[in-house]
Amino acid sequence: MKLYAIIVAGGTGRRMGAEIPKQFLELGGRPLLMHTIERFREYDSSTEIITVLPEDQIRHWIELQEKYSFNVPQTLVKGGSTRFQSVKNGLEFVETPGLVAIHDGVRPFVSPDTIKRCFETAARLGNAIPAIPPSDSLRLVTGDSSSALDRQHVRLIQTPQVFKTGIIKEAYNQDYRPEFTDDAVVVEGTGAQINLVEGNRENIKITNPEDLLISNAFLSKGNL
Amino acid sequence: MKLYAIIVAGGTGRRMGAEIPKQFLELGGRPLLMHTIERFREYDSSTEIITVLPEDQIRHWIELQEKYSFNVPQTLVKGGSTRFQSVKNGLEFVETPGLVAIHDGVRPFVSPDTIKRCFETAARLGNAIPAIPPSDSLRLVTGDSSSALDRQHVRLIQTPQVFKTGIIKEAYNQDYRPEFTDDAVVVEGTGAQINLVEGNRENIKITNPEDLLISNAFLSKGNL
Repeated sequence: MKLYAIIVAGGTGRRMGAEIPKQFLELGGRPLLMHTIERFREYDSSTEIITVLPEDQIRHWIELQEKYSFNVPQTLVKGGSTRFQSVKNGLEFVETPGLVAIHDGVRPFVSPDTIKRCFETAARLGNAIPAIPPSDSLRLVTGDSSSALDRQHVRLIQTPQVFKTGIIKEAYNQDYRPEFTDDAVVVEGTGAQINLVEGNRENIKITNPEDLLISNAFLSKGNL
Repeated sequence: MKLYAIIVAGGTGRRMGAEIPKQFLELGGRPLLMHTIERFREYDSSTEIITVLPEDQIRHWIELQEKYSFNVPQTLVKGGSTRFQSVKNGLEFVETPGLVAIHDGVRPFVSPDTIKRCFETAARLGNAIPAIPPSDSLRLVTGDSSSALDRQHVRLIQTPQVFKTGIIKEAYNQDYRPEFTDDAVVVEGTGAQINLVEGNRENIKITNPEDLLISNAFLSKGNL
């Protein structure tokens, strides 16, 4: 089956307190987006990569690839004003039949096993998303008060979220709704049931300055 | 007001895949439990430290303190078969009036600001627990299926959980119930409302091998 990976990199850098958008931050001497893309090519070198970036970063990304001699062929796609629109733009370059992994550009530590579990389960069941149990207690906040939430019933959701291409393209024909915070929820909007597979704990989303520190630690232990 | 810190260190080492219990793993050249205890003495050097350990580790902990010339005075207390019983054993050494912080022995990266916010809010309102928003999407698992959980309404709960001593001692007079997974829930069992304050993202619980890697990264950046 034809494999695609839509790598969504929407960061503008504001949240990290840095000038550089998160996806271009250096990790092991290269922009971290390069590491992320390579994970999918390592799993299957025929995977077609579709990289979605804010329009004003596309030129810079091309220059970075030249500078670092990064030669993975990609379809470069302009992002939209929401993550929903960005993924939708990427899906225009995906054909049926096939499987598509939709992955955060700032999750370079996804393991080969997580990618494998997602693709294999989605091939059988139509979709698969990686999840891990939380290490902390949880509480549900309602207005000024909060109540305990049994963490045994909660999972932290990662990417790649993998789908049969026909299923996800149909799901993205729905009108945008604010509750569409990830691709699984968009697919649920069509009535499908979502399949959870095991993620990997290192597969963090690089969001805060602490995350970059953590990333360098993972890197030094040979995780990339 | 008199300040206490009950440091609960119940790890046996099995979950880390190591012989050494988690609280004794080396971090920056010393068992990490020493770092954790020091955080509270740095906040207020008069804080009375109550360290709760499995009975068969107490002798080893005394030897480690001699070996590393660690001189913080502590009341050493035998743990129970549940976390509930361990905390209850520690509370026998706490007097009223006062404030008591109940803290995981394997959270050495709690920041001075988090400790301050917890003590100050608990002094005003009776209790305070540190919380941070999750970085990942969340799902609620029910049997074989799962559904999206709006992460904007969920908080990851850390320690120290701080209480007026009278309130927490009364709460621990309740009979044990399986839902008593942290001290906040025990206090809620008496009808009290819990107050959330801001935690700090580095304040992780060292549970998995990856966490030790992360810890060394924090350490190298001067977080201890």
